[in-house]
Amino acid sequence: MLKDFETKKRENKTALNDEIRQLQAQLLSQQQLLMKAKIPVVVLIEGWAAAGKGMLIKELISELDPRFYHVESPKVLPETEERYPFLYQYMKAVPVNGKVTFLDSGWMESAIRKYLRHEISKDEYRRRIRQVNEFERQLRDGGYIILKIFLHVGKQVQFERLFQLVEDHSTEWRVDNDDLWQQKEYKRFLEAYDEFMDKTGDIAGWHILDGSRHKTATRDALRLLVQRIDRALQEGRYEGVTSEEDFPLKEMPKLAEVDLSPVIDNDEYKKELKKLQSRIGELHNIFYRKKIPVILCFEGWDAAGKGGDIRRLTYALDPRGFDVHPIASPQPAEANRHYLWRFWTRLPKTGHICIFDRTWYGRVMVERIEGLCSENEWRRAYHEINEFERMLTEWGAVVLKFWLHIDQDVQLERFTLRENTPEKQWKITDEDWRNREKWNDYEIAVDEMLSKTSTKNAPWHIIESNDKKYARIKTLRIIVKALEKANEKHFQKTIGS
Amino acid sequence: MLKDFETKKRENKTALNDEIRQLQAQLLSQQQLLMKAKIPVVVLIEGWAAAGKGMLIKELISELDPRFYHVESPKVLPETEERYPFLYQYMKAVPVNGKVTFLDSGWMESAIRKYLRHEISKDEYRRRIRQVNEFERQLRDGGYIILKIFLHVGKQVQFERLFQLVEDHSTEWRVDNDDLWQQKEYKRFLEAYDEFMDKTGDIAGWHILDGSRHKTATRDALRLLVQRIDRALQEGRYEGVTSEEDFPLKEMPKLAEVDLSPVIDNDEYKKELKKLQSRIGELHNIFYRKKIPVILCFEGWDAAGKGGDIRRLTYALDPRGFDVHPIASPQPAEANRHYLWRFWTRLPKTGHICIFDRTWYGRVMVERIEGLCSENEWRRAYHEINEFERMLTEWGAVVLKFWLHIDQDVQLERFTLRENTPEKQWKITDEDWRNREKWNDYEIAVDEMLSKTSTKNAPWHIIESNDKKYARIKTLRIIVKALEKANEKHFQKTIGS
Repeated sequence: MLKDFETKKRENKTALNDEIRQLQAQLLSQQQLLMKAKIPVVVLIEGWAAAGKGMLIKELISELDPRFYHVESPKVLPETEERYPFLYQYMKAVPVNGKVTFLDSGWMESAIRKYLRHEISKDEYRRRIRQVNEFERQLRDGGYIILKIFLHVGKQVQFERLFQLVEDHSTEWRVDNDDLWQQKEYKRFLEAYDEFMDKTGDIAGWHILDGSRHKTATRDALRLLVQRIDRALQEGRYEGVTSEEDFPLKEMPKLAEVDLSPVIDNDEYKKELKKLQSRIGELHNIFYRKKIPVILCFEGWDAAGKGGDIRRLTYALDPRGFDVHPIASPQPAEANRHYLWRFWTRLPKTGHICIFDRTWYGRVMVERIEGLCSENEWRRAYHEINEFERMLTEWGAVVLKFWLHIDQDVQLERFTLRENTPEKQWKITDEDWRNREKWNDYEIAVDEMLSKTSTKNAPWHIIESNDKKYARIKTLRIIVKALEKANEKHFQKTIGS
Repeated sequence: MLKDFETKKRENKTALNDEIRQLQAQLLSQQQLLMKAKIPVVVLIEGWAAAGKGMLIKELISELDPRFYHVESPKVLPETEERYPFLYQYMKAVPVNGKVTFLDSGWMESAIRKYLRHEISKDEYRRRIRQVNEFERQLRDGGYIILKIFLHVGKQVQFERLFQLVEDHSTEWRVDNDDLWQQKEYKRFLEAYDEFMDKTGDIAGWHILDGSRHKTATRDALRLLVQRIDRALQEGRYEGVTSEEDFPLKEMPKLAEVDLSPVIDNDEYKKELKKLQSRIGELHNIFYRKKIPVILCFEGWDAAGKGGDIRRLTYALDPRGFDVHPIASPQPAEANRHYLWRFWTRLPKTGHICIFDRTWYGRVMVERIEGLCSENEWRRAYHEINEFERMLTEWGAVVLKFWLHIDQDVQLERFTLRENTPEKQWKITDEDWRNREKWNDYEIAVDEMLSKTSTKNAPWHIIESNDKKYARIKTLRIIVKALEKANEKHFQKTIGS
């Protein structure tokens, strides 16, 4: 593929410059149309060191309004970014509807360098390739245009360019050891690039451009971008359909079948609470030290006791090592991006615990029921969420999901109590009452959610919450048990490696 | 101050616990009132290593709703954070109106450690103390409650606690070399803490609590917080008045006096543009290498040509090393914080160039004229902005500010052209026409702004822009000259040190 590449005829320089200017003007005129059509664009520019990626991006943006695009250069990751999942920084960089993000190298370079440096195993590398395909499909299905360009130069051209850069004192700093290493290992990189492109071309195809001829490459990249946008403007924003894959699922009971009678005696509650909190505090220490991230997801009926549950939990934790993310309706910057964006960007660092008070499951509950997304969208979400959570557990996170379950009578009791207690009134709103009227719709949605997303790696736990104290103890017990198991597994892995 | 401290009588344990629970409940009930009153709160917990800061914060938040507060633990800064101004991370952490941020150590610890480690000079340390006072005053004047607590333990108590932590394998990791070094250098720290508190107590006073007695300290901290919030709820959100300080100012002409006739010949324009762009490209390289940050601010009449100016500039830059920030009306998360927050959080890393297409000067122009802030607020802003920009230049940034000036006839011409050219129509809105009607109000505001904020370190440059090409060349020339001068100064400093 790459090898047969360096055979392209010359072109008239003036004609080329004219065409470039014309294409830049076209791109400029597409700006407003993209905004109107609310189509976001990700342009990924990969390629060899010194192939001219930066120069190319400069030409692509030269006529555009800065309000319209953003350039990301994730070449060097600070240590903190290394403490997030592989694709975190790229998800973080996706634009809002109608805008463009240019990535000056991205997930291809990042995965390949780590692999060739033996910093990740062959298995992990394969997983990352799969994650890239899932990532691209999710973005595409969510309406994103993804244009992928590979800027190619031969070994000799790269050598000459690196040499020239290093010779000039003012540009020497641009060449790092990685670049020199790539020149030395040119053949290994060539094979890796070829393989990567081969395995990640299905969702968004790769376009190889000749980096040794800057003007031609610029023209070709502009053509590709303008044509791709034109097509999208004609066809309208793409909406993916459901894709099915067999995730190994745990059998879940229907909500109606859940026995809500369990209670706990107050003395036992106090004793157990203290014991469990103390154990969680110890485990938090261990997980912090071993850099294992933990993601705890709380969903449940209004007034089921999520807040109280979470408080009993956080009381046991060191405030330096956890965050609670209450999830309400999305802010504009969130609503105008992929629906999982606001959760990706809230992921914990390795070693931290992050607690979601409501989660991405809003997609298949409130958004489904209130018609805030299309049927296609929420149907697609089960699978996308399973992929998202698999990615999290593959990254090393412990993911636990709790459904706090109560019956309608208990909810009514608690609502009424809230209304009649001045300092609790803020907790009850008209919306809660409206949601209550839709209990049956919610029950159908929750049953479907539990049955379709209780994967082996990130299972749901139904917490019987008619008795709040029972619920708290059960939640904490599940957390303790899961963390102890994960700690053992981590030890096994340490021995194994 | 600290030395006379360790003399407090015992208290009945049960009574203490009761009071703590009661205060926690009070704090909980203040939550909603704070939200309604839109008063944001910053609680800074400083103190010795192992004094129990984390434990204290845990007690303060234990009854609160997670939606209401956030805990920041900026103990260890990743390298990237080091590449921003000293107070950057703390400004980033300030809460939105009605919410609370707890800082688990903050600007005191950060400044003192660097100073005692000789990583910053005595002069720089003094500057930081001044910046802290400015920072606290600006927050207070902007309606923030600032509560500052110092958790004190004697040398022996610290020794015992560190020893205990290190002895226990599961807590050993919590003690870092810095902590041990602090124990060793206890006396130097003691003096530094005393001096720092002495010099930063005017805006928000320090409260020293006894860290050796956890319960008492918890009670005292809760009391302080509850009382402080109560007072604020009674008095209402604080609004600062103008404070005056003599900044050395450059004399600026009135806009009406500016001669707008300068033009440039097209051939000369092309030649100069090429030359200047090439030079800026070189300088960008140098600044990137030397890690000098550059902040370029563009303001001007609608249709004065900011976008075109910026594009000619960015074309010369490497996309990896700059960002353009178009400033529109603030998003909710921005509007609900200190008005400078959205600019602080967009500051460039050292070595990067950041271009603001409209700036913080919106405060004294559009916000003043449209009544989006109070008179007190915009009058105070001149001084606050001068402080902000002084902080930026003290950090090492080159700050340049451009006012693109045209006359009303030229604006009308350009507006009309935009309306009649389909691909330019998006650039002209009803708001532009409405602003045009307020030309005189704006002229008064701009004249005042130019005269009050053209400091020696961050001067304004009026760019005559009736001829767009002339304007572009003049802008680029000023940038080149300023960068060359800054580069020389940087070299002098390097020799000097």
